[in-house]
Formats: sequence, structure tokens, C-alpha cells
Amino acid sequence: MYIGIDLGGTNIAVGLVDKKGNIIAQASTPTLRERPWTEIVKDMASLTHKVTAAAGKNLADIKVIGIGIPGNIDNENGVVVRAANLNMTNVPIVEEFRKHIDIPVNLENDANAAAYGEYFVQDPRRDNFLMVTLGTGVGGGIVIKGKIFRGFNGAGGEIGHHVIHEGGEKCTCGRRGCYETYASVTALINQTKKKMAEDPDTRMHKWVDIHGGVTGFTAFDCAAKGDAAAIEVRDKYITYVAEGIVNLINIFQPETVVIGGGISYEGETLLAPIREFVKKHEFNKQAPRTQIQVAALFNNAGIVGAAMAAKKQKFL
Amino acid sequence: MYIGIDLGGTNIAVGLVDKKGNIIAQASTPTLRERPWTEIVKDMASLTHKVTAAAGKNLADIKVIGIGIPGNIDNENGVVVRAANLNMTNVPIVEEFRKHIDIPVNLENDANAAAYGEYFVQDPRRDNFLMVTLGTGVGGGIVIKGKIFRGFNGAGGEIGHHVIHEGGEKCTCGRRGCYETYASVTALINQTKKKMAEDPDTRMHKWVDIHGGVTGFTAFDCAAKGDAAAIEVRDKYITYVAEGIVNLINIFQPETVVIGGGISYEGETLLAPIREFVKKHEFNKQAPRTQIQVAALFNNAGIVGAAMAAKKQKFL
Repeated sequence: MYIGIDLGGTNIAVGLVDKKGNIIAQASTPTLRERPWTEIVKDMASLTHKVTAAAGKNLADIKVIGIGIPGNIDNENGVVVRAANLNMTNVPIVEEFRKHIDIPVNLENDANAAAYGEYFVQDPRRDNFLMVTLGTGVGGGIVIKGKIFRGFNGAGGEIGHHVIHEGGEKCTCGRRGCYETYASVTALINQTKKKMAEDPDTRMHKWVDIHGGVTGFTAFDCAAKGDAAAIEVRDKYITYVAEGIVNLINIFQPETVVIGGGISYEGETLLAPIREFVKKHEFNKQAPRTQIQVAALFNNAGIVGAAMAAKKQKFL
Repeated sequence: MYIGIDLGGTNIAVGLVDKKGNIIAQASTPTLRERPWTEIVKDMASLTHKVTAAAGKNLADIKVIGIGIPGNIDNENGVVVRAANLNMTNVPIVEEFRKHIDIPVNLENDANAAAYGEYFVQDPRRDNFLMVTLGTGVGGGIVIKGKIFRGFNGAGGEIGHHVIHEGGEKCTCGRRGCYETYASVTALINQTKKKMAEDPDTRMHKWVDIHGGVTGFTAFDCAAKGDAAAIEVRDKYITYVAEGIVNLINIFQPETVVIGGGISYEGETLLAPIREFVKKHEFNKQAPRTQIQVAALFNNAGIVGAAMAAKKQKFL
């Protein structure tokens, strides 16, 4: 058995995972990221005890523990180099964790872990696998020949921060026009609000009255009902997402691209136009083409991926 | 000893290469791409005999032969899937070559071969290596942990075809705003011509009168003399190049980026502002940073890289 720990800015989620990537038991607790980091590690350890006991197992059954972190990690030394959302800089998290539970730990970037989780459960025979997560930002994880690609310094795979529109929308990273400023759910919400301000008659206003606010689903839901303004927002957003995916396919030629994040619940509504756009615009027209699909694990990808990456320990 | 063959749209260049990547003898002949491809293969074989004899060696001294091709290749079957500049589609080039010289052959994309050549001679211990070639188009080659990265279908690494300006300049690939439409030498020439049309007083007109036409050096040469219009063209062009390099660093985090192509002769004039731009705009600010330098092999990278890639036979 394996433990996967998904340490996020909001919650600490821990799962006991079998060798096939199935979650046997899971538990979570708020991260409360303002407290001392050693307290967070203590909770990670107690949740590990909890899920192990809940499944009628004990620590001797755990081979290795994987931790996924939203930030740059130094895997070799088990150190969080920098995780802005956790207020962590140069934190020796593995050493601290092993004071509580002395089992080998593998530290991984959370987007890499999620990508590995999807790769593992969807089909681990696939050659080159790219996961694009559309959320608050745009995250990415790359698996090449079964190995997580990290870059030479552990900071690779920041696909959300490639400029697709020079001089465009201001990004949190300081540049203008990053993919994430057009294709994240945050961007979609901004695009939706802008259109609503322009068009007082769109159905989206009513949707917001009912649901209490603009979300990533506002435009998609209203577009499905035939609202012209919503269709415009949705289709333009999908074009942005697809433009970045073509960029990444031209660079990586992965066998599979998996789209994750809440908006991927839209399934074929999102996928079909992306596939069409990619087919029309990708550079490669002769060799076999990339398959594009949605995530299977959703919120559990972090737990499963951290656990299975720790099990396999194969990195580039 | 090894043979490296750089089969281009204009010339066939063949070199005898030692195990350290030094070219011992080389020869070339025009490709004449309109003729039957079997004739081209015949010339590749006769140049191989020629350079071997020129070095006082014979075919028994050749361990393996590498061929670099500007197009998609099927390495396993030794087939050129598609090479537009050679008018080749599904051509069994290795089988045909071995009718003339029966020595094992490794087929490689030419940009991958060039990247591998630079990697090999600059420092083969470097972890993740990206070569960006600024020429007629923008080519790319990626070496990860000592292995050439090809993508699952052999068509990966088309970094020139990632959109940096959505809706921008029309690209030969059919999209708008590809990196290559801003950062290639072709793009620089267009940018130079546009500025010259706007500004009848720029020194660049005189440069063109002397040199017979606009080249990639027009703006760089006149900028060095203090011409304001030329400085504007040069600096804007360098910004375009740097924008794409930041994109690629954020995605790959290579230990080294090497810039190749004729314009890389500019050396520090090109590199210094790129380094400054990258330092300011790259996403990673904590982990070790990418080194940026110019190519060492220039036109010989294809020969050396094809030969050394064939020697090593390590691919992703």
C-alpha cells in the first residue's frame, strides 16, 4: 500500500492507495497555511495514521509515501524550495515528516503528481502524456516514457506561463499575455463578466442572480440554452484553450493530452471544438496524431499521483 | 569513426567524424531535389566513400552512419515520413542507402541532430538542453538527460510553431502569430523592410545599396553605428526572440539554451539583452537558472549531430 498526500493551499488531503491506483481510504483537514509549517506536517502525519487505521491496516503495510506540493521542490533533498500558496521557502518537509512517521517519502510538484496520476490510471503504456489543468491558473504536468519531466531544476512544466498573446492581459507572473490569463477559469470568469457588462440582456445575468455569482459554468450553462452572448464567450474561451494546446502539441507531440480542472466536467462540449481546432491548426499532418480527452480522477489525481509517483520513482 | 550526413533542401553535406565529434573530412554536393530521390541517395553514398578515402580510411572503419533530414522521420523503420523541402513522402531512405553501403544507419530530424551536436560538443553532462535555431524559420531540438526528445510520433520539437501573438502575422503553417513569424531571420528581414519603408532617412537604405539587399544583418550592422531606426528594429526583434525563449524556459527549464542560425554570429549583441529579458520575465526566480549561449558548431552541427546521435542511439 501507498500513501498519497495532496498538500494544497486550502486543504491537506491524504489517501491510502493500492498498487493499482485505487484509493482505499481518504481524509482531509484545512491547511490553515498561516500557522507554523511544522503544525501542517503534524496534521499530514496524523491523517496518514487515520486513513491507514480506517482501512484496517498499519504503518508496516505502507511501502512509500508521496507528497504533492504546489511549488518548486528539491526532490533529492526533500525540500520545498518555494511554494507561494503555502508560505514555504526552503522548508525541509521530508525530514520533519519522518520525525513523525519514518517511511521513505517522495516529494513532487502537485501538477506533476496529478499528471502522473492521470497517466497511471488512464493507461500507463502511453508514450508521452501531457496534462493541462484549467483552474485558478493553468497548470501542467508532463510524463515522458513513463517518467515525470521536471526540468533540470525541478521547476519545469509551467505551461500556464507561456505567452500566447504578446502585450496582452497582465499575468500574476509579471508578463503580459500568458496562456493562463486567457485559458484559466479565472480568465473565463473575467471574460464572462466583461460580456455581461456589455450586454444587459444576456441570460447570464439571470443565471448569476440564481447561482449567486459568476463561475466558470455561467457561460457554458447559458450557451447550452442558446444565449448568443454566452455562446460567444464560451466559444472564444475554448479557442484560447485550444490555441495553447496546439502550441504544446507542436512542441511535445504527446500521445495523449488530458484536460483537467473543474471545467473539464463539461466533457464533449469542451473537447469536441478543441479537437476540431487542433486538427485544423496543428503542425503535424502526417504522423500519428495526439488524442485529447478529459481527466478521469478529478480532485483525486493529486493523491493518486503522489502515491504512484512515489511507488515508481521514475523521473526525468 | 562515424559518418554524419546533413541532407538539406539545397546541399547534401557529409562528414567523417571521430568519437569526440571532430570532423576529419567533409564534402558536399547540391541536393537537386527535383530529381528522383534514389539519385540523391546515390550521391549520399558516393560522398561517404569520398570523405572516407580523403581521410585515408575505408568503410570497415565506419561503425555507424547518421542521416539528418529536415522533416518527420520514422526512425525505427528508417523512413522519411514527410520532408516538404525534399519532396519526400514515405521514402524508405535507409533501405535504399544500404543497397550502396551496408552499414547501420540512424535517421534523425535535422534540428534534433543539430541540437545533439551542440549538446555533445558543448558539454554532454548538461541536464536538459534546448537549441533554438533562428533561420528561414525557427527550428528546435531538445535533449533531455542525454537523449534526443522526439515526441511519440517523431514530430516533436516544433518550437517555431507555438503562437506568441494570437491573431498576429500569418505563418506558413496556416496559423497566425507563430514564434517563427516574429523571431526567424525571415521575420527580421520583413521587420527591417517595413521600417525602411516608413523611414527614408535611416542608414539602412545606404547599407542595402552597398550590400545589394536586406539581410538579417542590416538592422544589427546599422544599429551598431547608432542608427535610431535600426536600433528600434533590432531591439524589437530581440524582444520577440527573448519572449519565446522565456516561454520555452518556463516549460522545459533546460540547464542550457543554445541559440543557433546565422544571426547567432552577433554573439553578445544578441545574448546580453536576451539574458536580461529572461532574468526579468522568467517564472522561476528561486531554483537554479538556465544558461543562455550561442552555438559553437554553426553549419557543422548537422553533420556532427547526425554522427554522434547515431553513435549514442539514445532517444526519448
